[in-house]
Amino acid sequence: MRIAVVHGPNLRLLGRREPDVYGRETLTDVNSAIEEEARALGVEVEFFQSNHEGALLDFLEDASARADGFLVNPGALTHTSVALRDALLGVSRPFVEVHLSNTAGREPFRRHSYLSDVASGVVFGFGVQSYLLGLRGLVSRIPNPNE
Amino acid sequence: MRIAVVHGPNLRLLGRREPDVYGRETLTDVNSAIEEEARALGVEVEFFQSNHEGALLDFLEDASARADGFLVNPGALTHTSVALRDALLGVSRPFVEVHLSNTAGREPFRRHSYLSDVASGVVFGFGVQSYLLGLRGLVSRIPNPNE
Amino acid sequence: MRIAVVHGPNLRLLGRREPDVYGRETLTDVNSAIEEEARALGVEVEFFQSNHEGALLDFLEDASARADGFLVNPGALTHTSVALRDALLGVSRPFVEVHLSNTAGREPFRRHSYLSDVASGVVFGFGVQSYLLGLRGLVSRIPNPNE
Amino acid sequence: MRIAVVHGPNLRLLGRREPDVYGRETLTDVNSAIEEEARALGVEVEFFQSNHEGALLDFLEDASARADGFLVNPGALTHTSVALRDALLGVSRPFVEVHLSNTAGREPFRRHSYLSDVASGVVFGFGVQSYLLGLRGLVSRIPNPNE
Amino acid sequence: MRIAVVHGPNLRLLGRREPDVYGRETLTDVNSAIEEEARALGVEVEFFQSNHEGALLDFLEDASARADGFLVNPGALTHTSVALRDALLGVSRPFVEVHLSNTAGREPFRRHSYLSDVASGVVFGFGVQSYLLGLRGLVSRIPNPNE
Amino acid sequence: MRIAVVHGPNLRLLGRREPDVYGRETLTDVNSAIEEEARALGVEVEFFQSNHEGALLDFLEDASARADGFLVNPGALTHTSVALRDALLGVSRPFVEVHLSNTAGREPFRRHSYLSDVASGVVFGFGVQSYLLGLRGLVSRIPNPNE
Amino acid sequence: MRIAVVHGPNLRLLGRREPDVYGRETLTDVNSAIEEEARALGVEVEFFQSNHEGALLDFLEDASARADGFLVNPGALTHTSVALRDALLGVSRPFVEVHLSNTAGREPFRRHSYLSDVASGVVFGFGVQSYLLGLRGLVSRIPNPNE
Amino acid sequence: MRIAVVHGPNLRLLGRREPDVYGRETLTDVNSAIEEEARALGVEVEFFQSNHEGALLDFLEDASARADGFLVNPGALTHTSVALRDALLGVSRPFVEVHLSNTAGREPFRRHSYLSDVASGVVFGFGVQSYLLGLRGLVSRIPNPNE
Amino acid sequence: MRIAVVHGPNLRLLGRREPDVYGRETLTDVNSAIEEEARALGVEVEFFQSNHEGALLDFLEDASARADGFLVNPGALTHTSVALRDALLGVSRPFVEVHLSNTAGREPFRRHSYLSDVASGVVFGFGVQSYLLGLRGLVSRIPNPNE
Amino acid sequence: MRIAVVHGPNLRLLGRREPDVYGRETLTDVNSAIEEEARALGVEVEFFQSNHEGALLDFLEDASARADGFLVNPGALTHTSVALRDALLGVSRPFVEVHLSNTAGREPFRRHSYLSDVASGVVFGFGVQSYLLGLRGLVSRIPNPNE
Amino acid sequence: MRIAVVHGPNLRLLGRREPDVYGRETLTDVNSAIEEEARALGVEVEFFQSNHEGALLDFLEDASARADGFLVNPGALTHTSVALRDALLGVSRPFVEVHLSNTAGREPFRRHSYLSDVASGVVFGFGVQSYLLGLRGLVSRIPNPNE
Amino acid sequence: MRIAVVHGPNLRLLGRREPDVYGRETLTDVNSAIEEEARALGVEVEFFQSNHEGALLDFLEDASARADGFLVNPGALTHTSVALRDALLGVSRPFVEVHLSNTAGREPFRRHSYLSDVASGVVFGFGVQSYLLGLRGLVSRIPNPNE
Repeated sequence: MRIAVVHGPNLRLLGRREPDVYGRETLTDVNSAIEEEARALGVEVEFFQSNHEGALLDFLEDASARADGFLVNPGALTHTSVALRDALLGVSRPFVEVHLSNTAGREPFRRHSYLSDVASGVVFGFGVQSYLLGLRGLVSRIPNPNE
Repeated sequence: MRIAVVHGPNLRLLGRREPDVYGRETLTDVNSAIEEEARALGVEVEFFQSNHEGALLDFLEDASARADGFLVNPGALTHTSVALRDALLGVSRPFVEVHLSNTAGREPFRRHSYLSDVASGVVFGFGVQSYLLGLRGLVSRIPNPNE
Repeated sequence: MRIAVVHGPNLRLLGRREPDVYGRETLTDVNSAIEEEARALGVEVEFFQSNHEGALLDFLEDASARADGFLVNPGALTHTSVALRDALLGVSRPFVEVHLSNTAGREPFRRHSYLSDVASGVVFGFGVQSYLLGLRGLVSRIPNPNE
Repeated sequence: MRIAVVHGPNLRLLGRREPDVYGRETLTDVNSAIEEEARALGVEVEFFQSNHEGALLDFLEDASARADGFLVNPGALTHTSVALRDALLGVSRPFVEVHLSNTAGREPFRRHSYLSDVASGVVFGFGVQSYLLGLRGLVSRIPNPNE
Repeated sequence: MRIAVVHGPNLRLLGRREPDVYGRETLTDVNSAIEEEARALGVEVEFFQSNHEGALLDFLEDASARADGFLVNPGALTHTSVALRDALLGVSRPFVEVHLSNTAGREPFRRHSYLSDVASGVVFGFGVQSYLLGLRGLVSRIPNPNE
Repeated sequence: MRIAVVHGPNLRLLGRREPDVYGRETLTDVNSAIEEEARALGVEVEFFQSNHEGALLDFLEDASARADGFLVNPGALTHTSVALRDALLGVSRPFVEVHLSNTAGREPFRRHSYLSDVASGVVFGFGVQSYLLGLRGLVSRIPNPNE
Repeated sequence: MRIAVVHGPNLRLLGRREPDVYGRETLTDVNSAIEEEARALGVEVEFFQSNHEGALLDFLEDASARADGFLVNPGALTHTSVALRDALLGVSRPFVEVHLSNTAGREPFRRHSYLSDVASGVVFGFGVQSYLLGLRGLVSRIPNPNE
Repeated sequence: MRIAVVHGPNLRLLGRREPDVYGRETLTDVNSAIEEEARALGVEVEFFQSNHEGALLDFLEDASARADGFLVNPGALTHTSVALRDALLGVSRPFVEVHLSNTAGREPFRRHSYLSDVASGVVFGFGVQSYLLGLRGLVSRIPNPNE
Repeated sequence: MRIAVVHGPNLRLLGRREPDVYGRETLTDVNSAIEEEARALGVEVEFFQSNHEGALLDFLEDASARADGFLVNPGALTHTSVALRDALLGVSRPFVEVHLSNTAGREPFRRHSYLSDVASGVVFGFGVQSYLLGLRGLVSRIPNPNE
Repeated sequence: MRIAVVHGPNLRLLGRREPDVYGRETLTDVNSAIEEEARALGVEVEFFQSNHEGALLDFLEDASARADGFLVNPGALTHTSVALRDALLGVSRPFVEVHLSNTAGREPFRRHSYLSDVASGVVFGFGVQSYLLGLRGLVSRIPNPNE
Repeated sequence: MRIAVVHGPNLRLLGRREPDVYGRETLTDVNSAIEEEARALGVEVEFFQSNHEGALLDFLEDASARADGFLVNPGALTHTSVALRDALLGVSRPFVEVHLSNTAGREPFRRHSYLSDVASGVVFGFGVQSYLLGLRGLVSRIPNPNE
Repeated sequence: MRIAVVHGPNLRLLGRREPDVYGRETLTDVNSAIEEEARALGVEVEFFQSNHEGALLDFLEDASARADGFLVNPGALTHTSVALRDALLGVSRPFVEVHLSNTAGREPFRRHSYLSDVASGVVFGFGVQSYLLGLRGLVSRIPNPNE
């Protein structure tokens, strides 16, 4: 089983951007933690980050040929990108939406997600742990072809 | 570490109520799965279910003396109970909100939660797995007194 | 055929509470009238009233084993209880929603019902007669097992 | 006692229009059933259907001289016609509003009625039975001059 | 100068419909008062009433060939008829909107008019006097061809 | 009979302020026209203009001892002054609200008036003529003590 | 294949009504252009115009026996007529909604259509050409019985 | 004169729950202060607290036989319980609504009360003093039978 | 301790303005009652009333040098004056907001206050008693410099 | 005459993405059909697709030097991109907006377009045919320089 | 060139009112800084402050005879005064709106300005510097009569 | 001190795009004027324009290492880009938001900015001068490290 992890805009700023909200770990730290969890779960992972909505769409289109599911932290695009929703629906792969922070407790415009209602599941508010729980949840949602 | 698991109204109907939405496992099945996960994580768990908002408040008040955190599936009270929010804030223990179904993809009145913005984290849409991920996330959010 | 009649909060005040709105008959009078109509229609009835949302949920769960349908006057819970909606959906029995008063002509918050869209039918504004019409309508909606 | 039954726009399509929503009985079938129920209740009935809002207003004005009450299925005018409301208020006769389908469970624009708050009572969701229950309720709301 | 006076739905009920709101004068009384005022102002008047929106549109189209302006009491169509607005704009004649009652002090749905913003002027709340003031205002808004 | 004519803020700018909207006549011209109409109707008039909401309230309180009614062009206070509404209700005299321009056809915030629903009548859109029609309407609404 | 072309209220005013918005061609010109296009496409057409909502509903009911589809310019009814929507759904024929003007660029109340979501397709903003494109689109949506 | 003091959900947590918002005094302290004030005012008091909406309704129904008025801190039910409103109206006793905190300055959902518009008076923001002022106000609103 | 009592617009009309809503006592009566209560509480009071928002702001600025707190009945400015809010915040003195009538049970626009969320406490609905309770509450909120 | 056809995000997924909504033809099929129609209409076409909003803006800026009009299927950007609107207005070329699916019948957020009100015309719901009708409509809207 | 600087309500409290929001400089300090900047720009300035909306309107009316433009900090009237908007439009002089604080980042009711859309320009959030930038911007917007 | 000037989408069209709204100067003209002003203020400037949101985010991340502040004209992204807001917060540098046109006086969707509430200051409506004033304001907001 292969999972593609997708980080949206500004996640490269992690560890440096508003540390009270997002924590002090960098994107590299996050990816290492995910990789470790993936190993424990026996799945392969690959990573992609971009500040470009278009690049994210291109990636989803491309990676859908080899990935069984997507673990997506859409960043700010959560609240504004119908195109990301359309791409995730278009590539026909289960995906899980994760957020580091508790988006329900921040600005009102962060309360709506264009992705949640079509996601396999949603996890938010646990910091880096959100990714690990989301990965675990995603794996449980992808039927094992060997079974 | 001790976690109290709180099931809100109608969860006793699990396995029987709208199985397309909530799955076919009963509340007993869910509790067994949680217990197993708790053992794996090295934490104690206790369970409480009630259809009575007041009984849930009484329980929170009571259990807060012995529990380090709450894993809460508030059921329909998610969308209507300010009292549950007040109780969870009042007992000053971290809590995680979980839902079996993807509440973002159902009736519009299920999109608002009175609990999410004050929760330590939120997990939904993964069926029974939501509880297990939520437990894991909650444990990661409670400082270990031995460290 | 057996019908369970469910009276929500404050209906014990009937005859005494705002008689201009709700009329002067007591709950006992109402139940007698229902019983008489039930006899005429050849169906059995049982009654339950509670001021406790949780007790109503418990009753629905319990009575669903023996009742073929529910005749429900949810009282104020009409406008606030997602849990009652969930219970009525969860027990998988047809139900009819009735109100004594014309809820459409009162305070704006009484115009929305959490039950109507999932009810078999709705009757309101006819005073005690609302129950009798609702019973008749409910019976017509329950398939006769002998046919 | 004489009741005028008023069918609004498109009800001539009954039996043919969206049978999943409105059932398979024709308007003639409906009128026969009403007539039979009227006989049982000892009241006279007359019928009027029009697709023209204006013709309905003209009829109400005209029939109010001889009818003691109106049984009205306003069809789509329920949601848009202030004129129908004004006419029903203007002729000073009690009226009952009925709908075949459960309007609360359909498109959002069907949730508001310009008539309900000034009706003697409202019945919906029981198919043809809605008319029969509405007739019964209307009769109970008209004071018997012989008493 | 020739003015066409247009009475919308239910105005034939005048004197009989909710006399507390609309007064006790009949439509004939109103028309007589208008005729007298017209004589005093030296203008010709003709009258048209219909409960049919379509008939009002037909009349406007027809009468626009001979009338210099329209005095319109749109009745309930005030609040719902985009078609009446379109017709009044389409015939390119100045018009004045009048109401017997104070529409601002009644039900909320009577507060919006589809006509007011494109009218030459608006008068409401003065009972029959509204028509007379409106006629006077309309005449002052139509350029005198003899000057 | 004595009428007090009240001009709200900025009406001193008349003839100079946005002449496309308000016309080219000055406040003096308007008052002369009103005076002439008052003479024709056999009523006395007095005038008051202020840019100060407080001064308008003081005047209403003061003038209510000698005036039988108020003809009010509240200017911009129409849309913002609950205090003006309270004063007009408080002094218990009939009043008519007038506007030079068609407020329904301007910015959205001009569509709501805090006065209309408690006015005896409303006239707008006829330029200076609005005052004259309003005066005529107000006089018709004040009971003649000699009759 | 036979198409019925339906023109709603005020379309008889075409060429005369607000020519800046609707153009200078009359309804006869429009019908000739449609007829020509129909010939080119090898389909028969018939025409119906009415200012009466009810007459449009009667026509749809009647014509549905002989027409394979409807090309509808609902005029102002677009924004207010639930009855037209119900009739078009009721007769079970594909229909295309067309508008001469760009309704998205006009008054806010013209932005909502009660028909679009149940239409086979929608064309607007091209003047008379809207009808021709709509006809072409409608024909492409009706299965050819000869194939 | 006898006053029943009703404390809603979570008030047993007082002194322990969010002390910055609610202060450090316990419910026992509050009740002592009320008792002292009652003595000073020459009225009897009794106390009731419950986390159960239904128990509060039961109590109101029961106590209304012996109490002349109710002093109610509805807690979170303020914002969600139509049933509490109905019960207070149903028992036909004057009541005063009090809150410890300034509910106007907290979360938006705390700004609406289902009780205020039918209360004899409302006091909030003064901490424990809110109860004492509310009691004093309530007493002044209950007609003295000895006078 | 010195308290400045501030009466907003139209309060000079007290006893004369809508006595059903505001009672029959005059402003002089109210001030006497306040003075008496102040004496009982051992505090000095001064009074200010104006119909001019600006004069109220000037007074607050001026009096803040000598007053320890403000008891404010803002009248209609409650709902419209951001400036009053700013002044009360600007002078940095605790203040209590009072209303004679139950503003929650009147017109919808009276439900919002620009002051409540920044007040030390709020009292309404008790008639003149509202001032006395408010004064008592205000005094309890001002730290005693002698302690 | 030269038309640039612009396909927005995710249109490369055509034929593969939600075929129930978008059909089974690929983007290449669509372009071939457009090319054929263009040949029939005697106009040249060029094509551009990108998932990057910025690339679409760059293209519009660039192609506006050689294209007489744009045929645009903005995909998800329809609902979110003010920048696309600004670019289309900025390059001062007529454009037609097309959609494959009936956007009026899908999620509520698809009902608003940032482009429609400034488009020359809009066509949606006809599948691939939408492009062909849109092309035809666009060509009819571009003045022929040879005439 | 002559500029009139207008300070709205409560600006006399500057330096004393909420210094965290508005800074520690007094109105005298602000005026000195403006005067200095005016000298540098070669323009004359005069100053006016009032807590009275009416006085501000009177001043604008008066000063418009001698001033070429207005630099306005409307204070709280920004959000509530249609009269100020009308006066600024009425006197037909360019004006610039300035605010010391960042009004977009404060209470929601501060986000709307009745002036911005008719201002020559708007500057906010720079403290005293807002006035200096606004002055500079205003001067650049007034055509130099000597050129 | 070094300032990075960021121009958002479509600003390359300047001088050519809707000149009535945006003026006739090109982006090169604007940059020259900024450079001149920067020289006068003794600060260094660099420029960046892109139609790609992602490229703007990349630039902010990159330039934040060398720039002391950002002068940002976000173009259409003002109203739609949460990502831009996050990036500007993430790089922890003061920034000023500027617009050429008066965004408050254009389409309603231009009234909301995702940046203003977190900007150091905002300037709009002065054409090119907006940049120069914004630069000046930004410089005044950056602490001078030499002081």
